[in-house]
Amino acid sequence: MPQSVLAVDIGGTKFAVALVDPTGNVQEARRVATPPGGDAAALWETLVDLVGSVLRTAGRDDLGSGAVAGVGVGCGGPMTWPEGEVSPLNMPGWRGFPLRARLASRFPGVPVRVHNDAVCLAVAEHWRGAGRGSADMLGMVVSTGVGGGLILGGRLIDGGSGNAGHIGHVVVDPDGPECRCGGRGCLEAVARGPGLAAWAVEQGWVPGSGQPDAGPDVPPYGEAVAEPDTGPDYVEETTASGRRLALDAAAGDEIALAALDRAGRALGVAIASAVNLCDLDVVTVGGGLSQAGPLLFEPLRAALREHARMGFARRVRVVPAALGQDAGLVGAAALVLAADRYWSR
Amino acid sequence: MPQSVLAVDIGGTKFAVALVDPTGNVQEARRVATPPGGDAAALWETLVDLVGSVLRTAGRDDLGSGAVAGVGVGCGGPMTWPEGEVSPLNMPGWRGFPLRARLASRFPGVPVRVHNDAVCLAVAEHWRGAGRGSADMLGMVVSTGVGGGLILGGRLIDGGSGNAGHIGHVVVDPDGPECRCGGRGCLEAVARGPGLAAWAVEQGWVPGSGQPDAGPDVPPYGEAVAEPDTGPDYVEETTASGRRLALDAAAGDEIALAALDRAGRALGVAIASAVNLCDLDVVTVGGGLSQAGPLLFEPLRAALREHARMGFARRVRVVPAALGQDAGLVGAAALVLAADRYWSR
Repeated sequence: MPQSVLAVDIGGTKFAVALVDPTGNVQEARRVATPPGGDAAALWETLVDLVGSVLRTAGRDDLGSGAVAGVGVGCGGPMTWPEGEVSPLNMPGWRGFPLRARLASRFPGVPVRVHNDAVCLAVAEHWRGAGRGSADMLGMVVSTGVGGGLILGGRLIDGGSGNAGHIGHVVVDPDGPECRCGGRGCLEAVARGPGLAAWAVEQGWVPGSGQPDAGPDVPPYGEAVAEPDTGPDYVEETTASGRRLALDAAAGDEIALAALDRAGRALGVAIASAVNLCDLDVVTVGGGLSQAGPLLFEPLRAALREHARMGFARRVRVVPAALGQDAGLVGAAALVLAADRYWSR
Repeated sequence: MPQSVLAVDIGGTKFAVALVDPTGNVQEARRVATPPGGDAAALWETLVDLVGSVLRTAGRDDLGSGAVAGVGVGCGGPMTWPEGEVSPLNMPGWRGFPLRARLASRFPGVPVRVHNDAVCLAVAEHWRGAGRGSADMLGMVVSTGVGGGLILGGRLIDGGSGNAGHIGHVVVDPDGPECRCGGRGCLEAVARGPGLAAWAVEQGWVPGSGQPDAGPDVPPYGEAVAEPDTGPDYVEETTASGRRLALDAAAGDEIALAALDRAGRALGVAIASAVNLCDLDVVTVGGGLSQAGPLLFEPLRAALREHARMGFARRVRVVPAALGQDAGLVGAAALVLAADRYWSR
């Protein structure tokens, strides 16, 4: 019997596929660019080719459904869950695409499970990352979008439609900026990279005031994430982006610093609300903006201290995500490999 | 074997004790006033007498621990959980009082379980009230305090320290009024009866502008709750209270109406945050202020619509709590009678 799981991480810029063994080791990882503007068939073919290539390299391509113990998939939302019909925001070629059913036809007889990409990142941090050992954790990603996943009582919380964990739409300022969701003052509207960058530009920020090779000035906070390879909602832009802001802030740009303070405080307020409501031990924060390190985490923690005042809430630890670009694959695999904790259906 | 559970509801104004059968029927309920300023021994003695009286009436007083199948207790917080050492805010006589251990000595060999009173109210609404059949529910009480309990995946969520469900400390306005918790802009700071009444008085409200016998004008929303008999944190004051505000608003007082609008909107914002984070089906709202009916629920639903915009979030139903003054007893009993859903330890 195969022990390893086929892990798939589907985003607007990249598809990633790997085998993941029961201890969480990622093997034979391969990545390809998402076909730009690809229609449903082109996207599916890209995925099939990538899967075939991974299985071939591992010498499992002729084993049929016996090749793997199961398939775990993280994909950008929205999607129906647990059915796994996906309509990723930044991949118009897939609208109601039956991703789970298609993969299940390809791998009959083994579990095939699809969940939101941000949920998979949270699962990865809980299973093998910075949230290990916590029973009550929120895993966050702060990048082009702000997303997350909730672990309560040691188990992944799905919510009624698989959408629990949307920390990006906790309201931090009812009269704040409009949000992509149609609401107003959501955390994401304030703290997502492009929103924050737009705010900074309005204040007069000139992207690039800090040099791109300002490496040593970027605080070594958590493990470097080469690419926030976490689906369309969490992919950084390259110009006036959150990552660019973080670099410029590290180089001393005052407006960039103010922007990180603004984002950090919004994060602290939203985290306080989540901690007060869910009685959390740990919050992990990953994604491009988290690379700013203390410049983001200090205002975050200050706002959290102001708004999480009850005894139980003060114990929460907010820590940078520990896993790098494989996090999405690790979390997707955990849907199968650690199903007792991360899969409820 | 006895089937019924001894249910205990301990609040700052009243102690209630009853037997509750496996279907949730409350029998032999008795209530006494909490001894004002009572020390630890006086409070305990009051409880023991009340328990004895209930058991005697039921003809079970000489059965020892065989008298009941278990003991469920709702008590005002804070407390250590699941240890059940209680320090109810409004009962200074009990500080770190080992309520669970004391009751366990009195009833050896059967489960004795203590949880927060607001959690018990949410459990009651889920088990036998307005949230029946929902897998993902927030049960709220809006009164002198604003509290609640979370049911996710069909099970009570405790959080790491038994404090999950503190919806009253979700932040609705980071620059809002100071909260009793030490924070700022919590839902409770805006929407709890006394805070709201204080705000109305500041605006020129004269309590009693609507007559107390304005009965027919009070919208018949949900079942009437004779007394918000739900622990110290949720007991109404009698003068410039939320209940008074609700009556005056029903009689057309403009400032009282504005106050209910203010509270309703704050509730809607906090509920939107909870729904976005936890992917809820149903939110039940009870407590004195909920008696205001549409005057509260309409601004609540308007704000909720503005801030819960994602497809999954729009399905949530916000409904008045259905159970009356026995809710606390029903929920306490459910900790034992439906432990598979409501007790995790």
